Amino acid sequence: MTFSLFILGSSSALPTSNRFPTAHVLNVQERFFLIDCGEGTQMQLRRMHFKLGRLNHIFISHLHGDHVFGLFGLLSSLGLMGREQDLHLYGPPQLEEVILQHLKMFDIHLPYKVIFYPLQCEKSGRIYEDKVLTVRHFPLSHRIPACGYLFTEKERIRNFRPGVIEKYRIPIIKRKGIQQGDDLVTEEGKVVPNEQLTLPGPLPRSYAFCSDTQYDRSILPFVRGVDLLYHEATFANADVDRARETKHSTARQAALIAREAGVKKLVIGHFSARYKDLNLLLEEAREIFPATFLAEDGERFDVPLVRATPSEKP
Amino acid sequence: MTFSLFILGSSSALPTSNRFPTAHVLNVQERFFLIDCGEGTQMQLRRMHFKLGRLNHIFISHLHGDHVFGLFGLLSSLGLMGREQDLHLYGPPQLEEVILQHLKMFDIHLPYKVIFYPLQCEKSGRIYEDKVLTVRHFPLSHRIPACGYLFTEKERIRNFRPGVIEKYRIPIIKRKGIQQGDDLVTEEGKVVPNEQLTLPGPLPRSYAFCSDTQYDRSILPFVRGVDLLYHEATFANADVDRARETKHSTARQAALIAREAGVKKLVIGHFSARYKDLNLLLEEAREIFPATFLAEDGERFDVPLVRATPSEKP
Repeated sequence: MTFSLFILGSSSALPTSNRFPTAHVLNVQERFFLIDCGEGTQMQLRRMHFKLGRLNHIFISHLHGDHVFGLFGLLSSLGLMGREQDLHLYGPPQLEEVILQHLKMFDIHLPYKVIFYPLQCEKSGRIYEDKVLTVRHFPLSHRIPACGYLFTEKERIRNFRPGVIEKYRIPIIKRKGIQQGDDLVTEEGKVVPNEQLTLPGPLPRSYAFCSDTQYDRSILPFVRGVDLLYHEATFANADVDRARETKHSTARQAALIAREAGVKKLVIGHFSARYKDLNLLLEEAREIFPATFLAEDGERFDVPLVRATPSEKP
Repeated sequence: MTFSLFILGSSSALPTSNRFPTAHVLNVQERFFLIDCGEGTQMQLRRMHFKLGRLNHIFISHLHGDHVFGLFGLLSSLGLMGREQDLHLYGPPQLEEVILQHLKMFDIHLPYKVIFYPLQCEKSGRIYEDKVLTVRHFPLSHRIPACGYLFTEKERIRNFRPGVIEKYRIPIIKRKGIQQGDDLVTEEGKVVPNEQLTLPGPLPRSYAFCSDTQYDRSILPFVRGVDLLYHEATFANADVDRARETKHSTARQAALIAREAGVKKLVIGHFSARYKDLNLLLEEAREIFPATFLAEDGERFDVPLVRATPSEKP
């Protein structure tokens, strides 16, 4: 029941010798989602032993090169590998034109279909859903239209308390309903409340991706209470003016959002090449929000399954 | 008096976890030339401690993505670094349109000028010249128009044999001419042949880049006798049919060209991802041409200064 975030790139526009541009992979129960695709993403995917063929959904936040320039090579490589399965691509409307022009310019004929979902970045809404999770997009505040993404597991069914199936001889036909919250009516007509029969299932887990964006409290409703918040932190506090000019955030501002949104864990990234030592940014964020971590290339963040606090006695 | 080739990427279209797509840097006496610019080139440049600002000339062989997809990010990064100096870009005519479209699509405003030199790949000719070297392009034989590049140092002036300046009291005004091959006419009217006065300067060094190309003997006149020949070797001999279909070469074919052209050293690269162990390709090439080496990522090939064989006695 994996819920893990992998950092493929942590630089801002100017990569460094050990920081590639933005790209994340989120693994939700063996579904792999790629979020942004900076230059070198396909090499990072290989280094981190991801199977490229398992990527079916790619989400692009905005059309700055450091979030997109790896996409052309990745699409082309998937074709060379003989992919036949549809690939689902989400992003600002102009992305489709960019891709089509590339395929034409470089005479690339993909043996699979790219299904494109144009997103109005100033709006929010559900853009993907399957049995285990939903994905929503929401507006970020940057120099050009930019989308944030929220990945949320669905509510899980409840688990039977040990021994109750045998004790009450619960027939198979009734079990699914009870796991969804029904009470049990026994053959004798006695009602056994659901709480005596089941424990809550693990809580749904969630990840929100916010890059690139300036400090903007209007994202709070979308990221409130998430297990893992990725918020860009391009600059240190001393460069707050530069952050304002370029519509980026400081580490401190990312932490302010995390604190106010009541998230469990904050991951900061998209670091300016000017900072050789990222501990400065980490410390500035941790002063405000202690559960902050650096999204360095190759890092992995696991969100464990946690049960809702049950009343333990049936 | 450096003449060194640096391999930034050695994969063919599909990169692997340790092979980036094609990019070479040639350092000729502290002039740095970038040849091809596959995805991730700017990261490889940084890893190998090149100063991006010292690149003034970029040569693109052909418009397949694995030779170009790093160019957009590199141009953009040079801009972010505040470059003001002109950048000279050589390649097939369509490259200019590709670059212009990119700058527009991604709203990139470069603070420097890109001077573009469209090359007719089916022809050959001198495309660059300065005090120490010339660069020529010549036709390769691939699925789309592709240019090979030949970098050749200029002839050096001759060096005075030890003691002759004092012995013949050669005035300063005559020295330059003698180093260029003049004989000395002494005040007494006696002629001293140049050979008695000078030794040849070091031989001009040369590097030829041939990728992508099928086995084609028509490149021989352009690469004859070079110190260092880079020839693509996408496939092993067992896959010679695949090489023919895709208009690539085998390691053996690269070696046949090297042998017939009488080059000093052969460097093979552009390896298909199917070969985990490149020793197979190396062995197949060395059977034909023993002085073959693998162009693996991070490798460096130095061409030492060698004097022409002089008659040692004046």
